[in-house]
Amino acid sequence: MVNRSDIHYFGAGPAPLPTAVLENAAQVLLNYRDKGLGLCEISHRSPEANEILTNTKQALITLLDIPDDYDVLFLQSGGTGEFSATVYNLVSIWVEKQRAKIAAEVGDDEAEVLKRLRSVVDDELRLDYLVTGSWSLKASQEATRLVGAKHVNVALDARKSNDGKFGRIPAEDEWTLTPRARGGPAFVYFCDNETVDGVEFPAFPKSLEGDDAPLVCADMSSNFISRKVDVRKYAVIFGGAQKNIGSTGIAIVIMRKSLLPPTSKSASPDLLRALNLPVGPIVLDYPTISKNNSLYNTLPIFDVWVAGQVMDRLVNNYGAKKIGGQEEVSNEKARLIYETLDKYSDLYRVVPDKTARSRMNICFRVHGGDAEREKAFLAGAEKKGLLGLKGHRSVGGIRASNYNAVSLEGAKLLVSYLEEYAKAA
Amino acid sequence: MVNRSDIHYFGAGPAPLPTAVLENAAQVLLNYRDKGLGLCEISHRSPEANEILTNTKQALITLLDIPDDYDVLFLQSGGTGEFSATVYNLVSIWVEKQRAKIAAEVGDDEAEVLKRLRSVVDDELRLDYLVTGSWSLKASQEATRLVGAKHVNVALDARKSNDGKFGRIPAEDEWTLTPRARGGPAFVYFCDNETVDGVEFPAFPKSLEGDDAPLVCADMSSNFISRKVDVRKYAVIFGGAQKNIGSTGIAIVIMRKSLLPPTSKSASPDLLRALNLPVGPIVLDYPTISKNNSLYNTLPIFDVWVAGQVMDRLVNNYGAKKIGGQEEVSNEKARLIYETLDKYSDLYRVVPDKTARSRMNICFRVHGGDAEREKAFLAGAEKKGLLGLKGHRSVGGIRASNYNAVSLEGAKLLVSYLEEYAKAA
Repeated sequence: MVNRSDIHYFGAGPAPLPTAVLENAAQVLLNYRDKGLGLCEISHRSPEANEILTNTKQALITLLDIPDDYDVLFLQSGGTGEFSATVYNLVSIWVEKQRAKIAAEVGDDEAEVLKRLRSVVDDELRLDYLVTGSWSLKASQEATRLVGAKHVNVALDARKSNDGKFGRIPAEDEWTLTPRARGGPAFVYFCDNETVDGVEFPAFPKSLEGDDAPLVCADMSSNFISRKVDVRKYAVIFGGAQKNIGSTGIAIVIMRKSLLPPTSKSASPDLLRALNLPVGPIVLDYPTISKNNSLYNTLPIFDVWVAGQVMDRLVNNYGAKKIGGQEEVSNEKARLIYETLDKYSDLYRVVPDKTARSRMNICFRVHGGDAEREKAFLAGAEKKGLLGLKGHRSVGGIRASNYNAVSLEGAKLLVSYLEEYAKAA
Repeated sequence: MVNRSDIHYFGAGPAPLPTAVLENAAQVLLNYRDKGLGLCEISHRSPEANEILTNTKQALITLLDIPDDYDVLFLQSGGTGEFSATVYNLVSIWVEKQRAKIAAEVGDDEAEVLKRLRSVVDDELRLDYLVTGSWSLKASQEATRLVGAKHVNVALDARKSNDGKFGRIPAEDEWTLTPRARGGPAFVYFCDNETVDGVEFPAFPKSLEGDDAPLVCADMSSNFISRKVDVRKYAVIFGGAQKNIGSTGIAIVIMRKSLLPPTSKSASPDLLRALNLPVGPIVLDYPTISKNNSLYNTLPIFDVWVAGQVMDRLVNNYGAKKIGGQEEVSNEKARLIYETLDKYSDLYRVVPDKTARSRMNICFRVHGGDAEREKAFLAGAEKKGLLGLKGHRSVGGIRASNYNAVSLEGAKLLVSYLEEYAKAA
C-alpha cells in the first residue's frame, strides 16, 4: 500500500490535487451540508449549487483581480472543446460586426448586404495563430477544420527556425501578424504555456498591445492561476480544469463583457451558413452560457466545487498577495529544478530554449536522450516516490510538471534526486 | 444532520447514486488501488484508466446485449451536447454517401459533383424529429439552428392534438415522416423518455422498422439501462450519465459500427461549408472519438468509473436476467405509484395520458393543481424524508423520478404517503 504522503506526483495532467481538498470531497460526495444527499446528486439548479458556482467564481475574481467588465463562464468542456468554442464565438461576433457596419451603409437591401459581407469575409476574415507547441498547433488545425485554411494565418510556426522542433519563441519581429491597418485579424490566439513542449510565454507579447490591439485569445489550461495575469489585455482566456485548477470535467472561460450581449451580438446561424462559416453547438455558445449563469445545460457541480476549494486555499494562503503568492512559489520551484539541471549540463539537457522555459512543465533529457539510461533514471525516481516524470511520447525524455499542487517539498526532493543521480553518474 | 438513510430522493437529475458506490468513490478519490494517487489525478492514458474504460464498456455491453457490430463511445459531454453531435455526425455521413453516389456517376468533374450534390441537399436532406416533450423539442430546435429550418421535418408535434401541451403520443398514422420512397430522412430522432413531461415511448415505433428503415437516433438520457432495448433497431442511442447511469460529466453513445470508418465516411469540412452545412467541433466527432477509444481529449475517468460501478451492481444483481431484472423493478415501482394515484383519481391527476406514462418520471397534480395545497403536499412529503418531488417549472405540480437508484422501499414509502395524504384529504 502506497500512501498519498509517500509520493510526489509530477504528471502533466490530470494533475495532483491537494489532499485536504480530496478529503473534503470524500465527505461531500456522500453528504453535502448534512442534507442527506451528495454533491454529485444535488440539482445544478439548487440553492447549494448556485452558492458553489458563485463562490468559485468569486475566488477566481479575487485571485486574478478580474475586472468588473469581464465575465467568468464555466462549461462542461475541456481545453480541446474550447479550441473550437473560441473560433465559433469570435468569428460569429466578427461577422455580425461587419454585417452591422455594411447594413448601416447599405440599408435594407439584404441581398446587397450579403453580397458585400461575402466579399469582406473572403478578403478580411483572418484568425492569427501563434504556434509555439503541440497545443497551439492543434488549436490552429481545429480552426482550419472549422473555417477553412484560407482564413487561418499561422503568424508564427516556432518549429521553422528551430530544426523543425518546438522549443523556442522567435522574436516578435519575425511574426507575421495580420496587419492592423487592413482591418486586422478577427483575433490572435496563443497558448500561454505548452504542456507537451515545456514552452511558456515569459510575458504578454508587446505586439499585441496598444489602443488598436486585436482581440487576444489565450489558452491557459496548464498555467492557469500560477502567476499574475493582466486580464484586460485579453478578449478571452480559457483553461481546462484538470491541471492547476481542479478535476477533469469543466473549462473556465474569462471573457470581456463587451464581446457579449447586449454590446456585441453573434451572427445568426442562417447567416453563418450562407457565408460558408461554421455554426457551433449551443453548449459552446458563450452568449448562451453567460446569459444562463453557466447553467444552460447540466454543469458538473462537483468539479466546480473542487475548483472552488483549490482556489479558496490559494486565497487563504496568500491573502492580499493573491495569485502573486502562488507565482512566487511556482517560480521558486521551477528555479530550483532548472538551476540543478543547468548545474549538471553535461548530464541533463533542458529541451526548450532558456528564453522560453516553462515554469510548469520542465522537459529535459538525460545522457543525451539515451532511451535505456532515461528508463533507469525514471526507475530510480520511482523508487524515491517521485512519479509521473515520463515525458510526452512526442518529445520523449523526462517532464516534471510543476503545477500548483506540487509542493515546494516535492520540488526539493526532485532536486535532491537530480543531484544524487548526477553525482553517481 | 440528515443521514443518507433518512431520505429518499426523487429528483429528476442529477439523480441519486447507490450509497455503496459513493462510499467506494470516497476512497478511490484519495487513493486508487493503493497507488498513492486518487482517481481524479491519474492519467486518462494510464493502464488503470484504460481498464476502467474497458470494464465500464463491457458492463454496458453485457447489460444491454449490445451486438458486436455496435461501438460504445464515452464523451466529455451531456445530453444537450449530443443533440448537436447527432446532427453534425449523421448529416456529415449522409452527405458523404450522396457525394460518393454522385461521383460514381459523374466521375472526376468536381464542379459538377458539387452542383448536383447541392441540389440533392436542397431537395432531399431532411431530419425527422418526433417531438413528444421538452427535450425532443429542444433537440429539434438545435437541429434547426445547425442545419436550417428547411431541412428539419417535425414529423410529430405531440402538443398539436393535446391542447398545446405535451402528454400523449399520437398514433403513428398521424406522424408525417419523410417518405422512404423519396430517399427518406437522413435520420429519425426521438426522445425515448421525456424527463420534464413524464412521457415515455411504450415500445419502439413500428413505422421505424423494416428492411428499408431509416437511421433511428434516440435520446435515452432519462431511461438508460432501465429496460431492455433492441439495440439493432437504432443507428445511435445516447444518454447523459447523470440520471440512471452515474454522475454529470459524460455522455455515452452506442453507435452502429457501419456508420463509422472504414464502412462510412464523413464529409470533409470544406465540402460541408460549401454546402452551407455546419462543421461540428472535433470533440463531438464520433469517428474521431471512436478511433481514439474515447480518449481523443481528456475523458473524466472518475465519471466513467462511477458509471462502471453502477452498471457492475446491476450485472451482479440480475445476472443472466441482465437489464431485464432492473426493468422488472422499474416497472414494479412505477406500477405501485401509478396504481395509487389512479385509486384516488379525485385527488391526484396524472399529467400525461395513460398510454404514454413514463416509468421514470411520474408527473401528477394534487387538488386539481392548486398551488398552495400542492406546496402543503410537498412539505408533508419532506417531513417524511421524501425529497426532490417538486415538478419542473414548465409543468408544475409533482414529479416523482423513479430512476434505478430509487429503491423499491423508497417507492413504497412514497405510496404510503400518497395513501395517507389521500385518506386525510
